Amino acid sequence: MIVGSVALDSVRTPFGEVTEELGGAAVYSAVAASYFAPVQLVGVVGTDFPEEHVSFLASRNIDLRGLQRAEGPTFRWAGEYEYDVNKRRTLKTELNVFECFRPHIPDPYRDAQYVFLANIDPCLQMEVLSQVRNPKLIMCDTMNFWIESKRDALLEVLKRVDVVFMNDEEVRQLFDTPSIVKAAHEVRNLGPSVVVIKKGEHGALMITDGAHFSAPSYPCEEVVDPTGAGDTFAGGFIGYVASTDDYSEANLRKAVIYGSALASFCVEDFSLRRLARLTIPQIAERYCEFKNMSFFEPI
Amino acid sequence: MIVGSVALDSVRTPFGEVTEELGGAAVYSAVAASYFAPVQLVGVVGTDFPEEHVSFLASRNIDLRGLQRAEGPTFRWAGEYEYDVNKRRTLKTELNVFECFRPHIPDPYRDAQYVFLANIDPCLQMEVLSQVRNPKLIMCDTMNFWIESKRDALLEVLKRVDVVFMNDEEVRQLFDTPSIVKAAHEVRNLGPSVVVIKKGEHGALMITDGAHFSAPSYPCEEVVDPTGAGDTFAGGFIGYVASTDDYSEANLRKAVIYGSALASFCVEDFSLRRLARLTIPQIAERYCEFKNMSFFEPI
Repeated sequence: MIVGSVALDSVRTPFGEVTEELGGAAVYSAVAASYFAPVQLVGVVGTDFPEEHVSFLASRNIDLRGLQRAEGPTFRWAGEYEYDVNKRRTLKTELNVFECFRPHIPDPYRDAQYVFLANIDPCLQMEVLSQVRNPKLIMCDTMNFWIESKRDALLEVLKRVDVVFMNDEEVRQLFDTPSIVKAAHEVRNLGPSVVVIKKGEHGALMITDGAHFSAPSYPCEEVVDPTGAGDTFAGGFIGYVASTDDYSEANLRKAVIYGSALASFCVEDFSLRRLARLTIPQIAERYCEFKNMSFFEPI
Repeated sequence: MIVGSVALDSVRTPFGEVTEELGGAAVYSAVAASYFAPVQLVGVVGTDFPEEHVSFLASRNIDLRGLQRAEGPTFRWAGEYEYDVNKRRTLKTELNVFECFRPHIPDPYRDAQYVFLANIDPCLQMEVLSQVRNPKLIMCDTMNFWIESKRDALLEVLKRVDVVFMNDEEVRQLFDTPSIVKAAHEVRNLGPSVVVIKKGEHGALMITDGAHFSAPSYPCEEVVDPTGAGDTFAGGFIGYVASTDDYSEANLRKAVIYGSALASFCVEDFSLRRLARLTIPQIAERYCEFKNMSFFEPI
């Protein structure tokens, strides 16, 4: 089960521009996860949400009974990336129907074993947790906005989850330290046994009990549109874990690589265009590329 | 053989402050390389250069016949790092005897098989190349200052070398592209068969003919002083390659890991303090840590 935003995104990058295309953290995560496991989506769209997007999501084995339809326009986000794609500028955030979103978990979803709380208000993340019965693994993401405005609520959420996904800046900000490793240990002290630090083009770092896993960065020649890469990464991760029903450290490492592989495809085109036309053999091939490019002989 | 700066560094970081301690690119590189192979050093110091530093370098199996002594004070650099150690501010650069440095390669050095041109004026790097006889492998480093002020001379040097070390910002700047991978291919088009991109706390990327190698970042809990980490990385790399006399792609990958391991020690203390008290078993242990932390199972 994945809970989060469903959006219409307008994005400008040095490679072009798209207007009101499918986006949102829950959408990127759900589509990524759907390559591995069936997905239950919880979110909200407005009355203007194009039917073609609904059909597309349904075609990806994504259960949409949790996708609420509210009066009013769908959440819209607009942003632009500079030549250096690490620099993002938000041009517009219109919450619309997302503003009063309250996650209502359909009864058949309440037994979900793997739950991903994508980046939404930590108070809503908590509401989701109060509605699920006994998940095996709860994962969450967040963003700088909540760290600044709802830090206490966010810390309460962190106490309840097993796996935390954050980017490197956010985790430093949360505990006001320049050291990613120290910050990750602070997160683990709250309860989560696994912290996954997303470092964008620099790969990812997973910190568990006594072990660090450093996942390689994929050398993309061109990043056409980085929107959703982090959500895709998290979605691929939880989808793979759910499909294998194995959250041993060794298998979580594989999940990080699957997530990284999916994210490396995501940025190759605007919106979900590349993810939509992805095939399982392509994912497998990229997994092997990750393996080859990070291999070195023992001492 | 390693050619470059020998300096007295004053450094302030959130962890403390040191004044006029041993530094310089050639020194960091030479000490790192000395863990693997005998080193011939080419550089210049002033009349005020402390004898204890000379003794220390000599004790590390570093041949100092190429270390010139000129009238006047030694090159001095002062800088400070913010809480986020990736942000460096140069407070003072006094070239002193380094200003009129002309590399004179002692005759016994001219048959050096492995040559590292650390970051100096590309015109001087070229002078060095005119004095060596038939090296097996030439490696160079550079910095933003030369990219801006002596780009043409730098491109001439690049045409003559086999392995280029640059940090990610520099290689992007050199070819005015946000893509590290594209920039690295541009470098390779000039002649070098190997490009090693240093990404600081994010590890390193080595690009060779048709292959990418992504080296993991080491999760340092505390970076006490990042000065010299890149030079240490390069020195460890060439020292290992020279000691094995094997520049196959597989062995260059091992060299990247040895370089990364040495750099991860370098930042644990100010100046060369940590490198000076390093042992071979500690290096071997860290190599294994790199291996463990980047391992994941095949598909």
